[in-house]
Amino acid sequence: MTRTSPQARERIVAGAADMISRRGLNATSIREMAKHAKAPLGSTYHYFPEGKAQLATEAVRYAGELVARILRKELRTGPVAGLRALLALWRTIVIESDFRAGCPVLAVSIEEPPTEEIPAAVAAAAEVFDEWENLLAASLREHGAEPEQAAQLATLVVAAVEGTVAMCRAKRSIQPLDNTAEQLQVLVRSAIND
Amino acid sequence: MTRTSPQARERIVAGAADMISRRGLNATSIREMAKHAKAPLGSTYHYFPEGKAQLATEAVRYAGELVARILRKELRTGPVAGLRALLALWRTIVIESDFRAGCPVLAVSIEEPPTEEIPAAVAAAAEVFDEWENLLAASLREHGAEPEQAAQLATLVVAAVEGTVAMCRAKRSIQPLDNTAEQLQVLVRSAIND
Repeated sequence: MTRTSPQARERIVAGAADMISRRGLNATSIREMAKHAKAPLGSTYHYFPEGKAQLATEAVRYAGELVARILRKELRTGPVAGLRALLALWRTIVIESDFRAGCPVLAVSIEEPPTEEIPAAVAAAAEVFDEWENLLAASLREHGAEPEQAAQLATLVVAAVEGTVAMCRAKRSIQPLDNTAEQLQVLVRSAIND
Repeated sequence: MTRTSPQARERIVAGAADMISRRGLNATSIREMAKHAKAPLGSTYHYFPEGKAQLATEAVRYAGELVARILRKELRTGPVAGLRALLALWRTIVIESDFRAGCPVLAVSIEEPPTEEIPAAVAAAAEVFDEWENLLAASLREHGAEPEQAAQLATLVVAAVEGTVAMCRAKRSIQPLDNTAEQLQVLVRSAIND
């Protein structure tokens, strides 16, 4: 019988998030996710009895919370610090994976649902984007940005970071991230009159 | 014997581009691409003897050229007109597909190559991003932007549009595109002192 361990469970979720960020959701089986996390398939089903859909949804939430935690911490210093931390995180992920890993939240967002029903993982991705945007927008408002501008700029930051990570992977170069980083910092600074 | 027709060939490429933009590359077989383009599998192999890799690469180039053609035309009026045309194109694609289709160039960029070798489709995606950025940057420079700022802003525009389309699909809402559009227009205008 498989013993239950929060650490083992989280390791599987983290492995699934990494795997989805590399390969996409449709092309990844639960067997491959388990293997990637070095977990037996049996214990993977033990923790995720609903299978791939459940594991993928938790993987999206896990990635979302990882980024949200960094944002919450760094935004205490201000929007520029939050933005810099976000850019630094993605820079590390892209470089350390040799341009092979990216964002699992983006990955599940761009795969058509196989049925009319919206899969739980896509719904989770929408919530994650909302949360990142809300954190950024709140911080921008607190530092003097107009509410409408804060909301728009928050969307732009999230979208630009996501798109840039994909461009870095295609080009196998960090240059797109450097370009985007520079422009986003100027924009955030001007919105808060820094 | 299959007769050769440029129209039939292009229809298969366009169908493959749409399919990859909906499902991703790894999860799509050449059989499904042929079916999606309403083309017999035999004639698909007739036009694309190297199979899926060849068809996917041409699909990426096709999507790249479609956008580049619109950019080249609209940028004659200026960077703001080019940006607006780009945003309008993606708005149409996302809404008309009921948030199911997106960008095949992004899709192939975020799937890990199965081997050490960079697949031709990913290399084509890198070239497409370069071309879009170069078109935008040249227009920005012609309208008075500093070269470095023009290059950075061009990357930001491409990245933001790509990321925003993914966010729209996850949220099944066009709001992210409206937010990003507003901010990008302000940014482009200020770069060219419009």
